[in-house]
Amino acid sequence: MSDLTAGEIPPELASLRASIDNIDAALVHLLAERFRATQQVGHLKAARGLPPSDPGREAVQIKRLRELATQSGLDPHFAEKFLAFIVDEVIRHHEEIAATSPE
Amino acid sequence: MSDLTAGEIPPELASLRASIDNIDAALVHLLAERFRATQQVGHLKAARGLPPSDPGREAVQIKRLRELATQSGLDPHFAEKFLAFIVDEVIRHHEEIAATSPE
Repeated sequence: MSDLTAGEIPPELASLRASIDNIDAALVHLLAERFRATQQVGHLKAARGLPPSDPGREAVQIKRLRELATQSGLDPHFAEKFLAFIVDEVIRHHEEIAATSPE
Repeated sequence: MSDLTAGEIPPELASLRASIDNIDAALVHLLAERFRATQQVGHLKAARGLPPSDPGREAVQIKRLRELATQSGLDPHFAEKFLAFIVDEVIRHHEEIAATSPE
């Protein structure tokens, strides 16, 4: 095995990497939009004294995302790990919002 | 604070959750497509005896995703953590492919 230098990248690999870069740009923008929505959820929950996390809602989300993953060819276990990764960040944001809201 | 039951969800919260569910469906499908591309990369690398990971490529991806995150209002630190989360899974796939490829 050897490391790749710029001149040695096979054209098929360069093409796949261009697709991956486009997908990543889309993912980043969707994540930005998702956190805009969850920030609004956080402010709404803080204003109404609702808890930052909602286990019932999360169970429904996990079930749905596992089904969507199966339909689209993604490993359902990975989809569940992905949601947990995102939700950890969301709950961190909600706790920050709750901590800075007036009582 | 109290838990939410179905009848008590404020309409603004229900609306934000509908947007989040749509975004999540898009994220799952994009992730499925991204792993389709990286599986092809894995097979290509295994066939040519190239190493599963490529630190130079990853450094370029991190820099670019941090910039895209800043432009779109996403925390660049989170974007970097997100890429690391995805790349861990990709490298696991590539190692599996390399282990099962003929020498």
